[in-house]
Amino acid sequence: MHRAGHLQSPTLAYETWGELNPAKDNAVLIFGGLSPSAHAASSEDDMSAGWWEDMIGSGLPIDTDKFFVISVNSLGSCFGSTGPASINPDTGERYRLTFPVLTLEDVADSAFLVVDGLFGISSLHTVVGCSMGGMSGLAFCVRHADAVQRFVSISSAARALPFSIAVRSLQREMIRSDPKWAKGNYDEGDPPTAGQRLARKLGMITYRSAQEWAQRFGRERSTDHARIEDQFVSEFAVESYLENVANKFSGAFDPNCYLYLSHASDLFDLAEHGGSLAAGFKRLKLDQALIIGVETDILFPIEQQRELAEGISSVCSDTHLAELDCIRGHDSFLVDMDAFRPVICKFFESCK
Amino acid sequence: MHRAGHLQSPTLAYETWGELNPAKDNAVLIFGGLSPSAHAASSEDDMSAGWWEDMIGSGLPIDTDKFFVISVNSLGSCFGSTGPASINPDTGERYRLTFPVLTLEDVADSAFLVVDGLFGISSLHTVVGCSMGGMSGLAFCVRHADAVQRFVSISSAARALPFSIAVRSLQREMIRSDPKWAKGNYDEGDPPTAGQRLARKLGMITYRSAQEWAQRFGRERSTDHARIEDQFVSEFAVESYLENVANKFSGAFDPNCYLYLSHASDLFDLAEHGGSLAAGFKRLKLDQALIIGVETDILFPIEQQRELAEGISSVCSDTHLAELDCIRGHDSFLVDMDAFRPVICKFFESCK
Repeated sequence: MHRAGHLQSPTLAYETWGELNPAKDNAVLIFGGLSPSAHAASSEDDMSAGWWEDMIGSGLPIDTDKFFVISVNSLGSCFGSTGPASINPDTGERYRLTFPVLTLEDVADSAFLVVDGLFGISSLHTVVGCSMGGMSGLAFCVRHADAVQRFVSISSAARALPFSIAVRSLQREMIRSDPKWAKGNYDEGDPPTAGQRLARKLGMITYRSAQEWAQRFGRERSTDHARIEDQFVSEFAVESYLENVANKFSGAFDPNCYLYLSHASDLFDLAEHGGSLAAGFKRLKLDQALIIGVETDILFPIEQQRELAEGISSVCSDTHLAELDCIRGHDSFLVDMDAFRPVICKFFESCK
Repeated sequence: MHRAGHLQSPTLAYETWGELNPAKDNAVLIFGGLSPSAHAASSEDDMSAGWWEDMIGSGLPIDTDKFFVISVNSLGSCFGSTGPASINPDTGERYRLTFPVLTLEDVADSAFLVVDGLFGISSLHTVVGCSMGGMSGLAFCVRHADAVQRFVSISSAARALPFSIAVRSLQREMIRSDPKWAKGNYDEGDPPTAGQRLARKLGMITYRSAQEWAQRFGRERSTDHARIEDQFVSEFAVESYLENVANKFSGAFDPNCYLYLSHASDLFDLAEHGGSLAAGFKRLKLDQALIIGVETDILFPIEQQRELAEGISSVCSDTHLAELDCIRGHDSFLVDMDAFRPVICKFFESCK
């Protein structure tokens, strides 16, 4: 592992779409955010909709008629890749907090093993990363600079700033404060869902924007009266909305995996690769880059998109910054396809 | 009470500075935010620094050589005024959750009893309200329109929008999720401090700004190694800062009082006074108004300051909006005196 420690024969879950061409030069690697699985789009093997269903597919912006698309479930996650919820082969027990400190460099390096070791791809056409995945993607580009030609960063950053660190640290504290977490040794039949629900709600508050909610909910009252347990909860529509979001998520994600991946997001800093941000950017060997950011994003604010674009353009003249005026904040790349589709289409069409 | 219920002979804690003149026309009423006591400034009776020490006093912007300044501890709070932590004279027990639903109209009406009933002031020179206190002040101005000539609103709003409601609702859920809260019947020797700490940290994240923290903390590491309990906490300086803030606050504020005041902030809506915001504004009878907002405030954003100023100016031509470019977000009125002092000085100097 990048910091310390070792994993014995880790597993990495991935999915692919399209065909790798004989020259092996049409591969696109996707790094998703903190919570999704590798299932970015439906396929013959799994017909259920993926988390980027409208972006990846035949005739779609990331066109599987042209590209061989690989999506990996981050190391440390709980959807097939080895993580804190996996069994440690040395002990026969789940890793839980004995899992080594996870970094996004580890996430990148494990994806490299799939790309290079498994598929024998020496150079990816493009690495695409969204949110935390943009930092994983940047880690890939800086550590495996010869293995990638183009980079698309979506609503991400060169490193976390204190507002985002504070939010994520508080989300972790919410889970850790739940007595059911039991210092990581929670009962699998009775996980710390109260803490997870709080963390998910805070997540949603930072994934969306105040402007969207003002338009969408205003001061509308909740119609879901069953939820009104006492005088302090779910009087307003926005409260019921968060309640529904939290109910869907908690239980679906292992709390320890969440802690590790959230912490890895805080730790990532391109400046660790060379001693400064400028030195980190200098290690990139990109032919083309696209940085997309959203003006209402409070978690990965637009200033950080500008910093990324400026830094990458110092070593890659064909760098484009797209500042989108989407209203739905950080999550826009998942929900505002009308804004993202043309920008990503244009990028892939312009590739030499 | 405004919604329903009744309090038997409630107490209201207040402090005053300066002298009420014989005409009783030099009184300034201050409404503070959710957490402070009535102790806005030091006095001979209490030499300790108040929460607005640099703003109220001899020769200061709210000049006690000229004005008789009254500060009230909000009804529902726990610093002398009757609230959920007070003893219900009917039962001899603390009110806890039997306290009636609290509104900022109740906070305003109880302050009116002090102003009118106790001091016999028929018309206040100025009502000044900060944050939640700005909404209490607006409630005062709309319900006791003849009793106030001027209004200064600082980082407040005509009503809460869903982002702020979501944040406060989540803070309340953090306290309610702490098993030690025990549905309001917590053990006084062992209150729900874990939940209160989480709520306070989320508060600070919304009281300050990402820009301030980026400058102040960047990615600095914590030097306070004693705090590092496990791999997930207090690695970064911003985390130690929040830890210190939370440790100072929790225990100092009654959790049930916090729930009631936080909920009252969500409930307030000027539009309830007349059926629409416009109708609410029409009920005001102000000679002069000043609306101050801060561009980096995410809890009471600058758009809401513009809405307030526009609404009040429809009935009061002498309305001025000051948009301050302070970096310290919502809390700027407490910490950025250099920005606030001249604006408030100018207002009081310009009073006819």
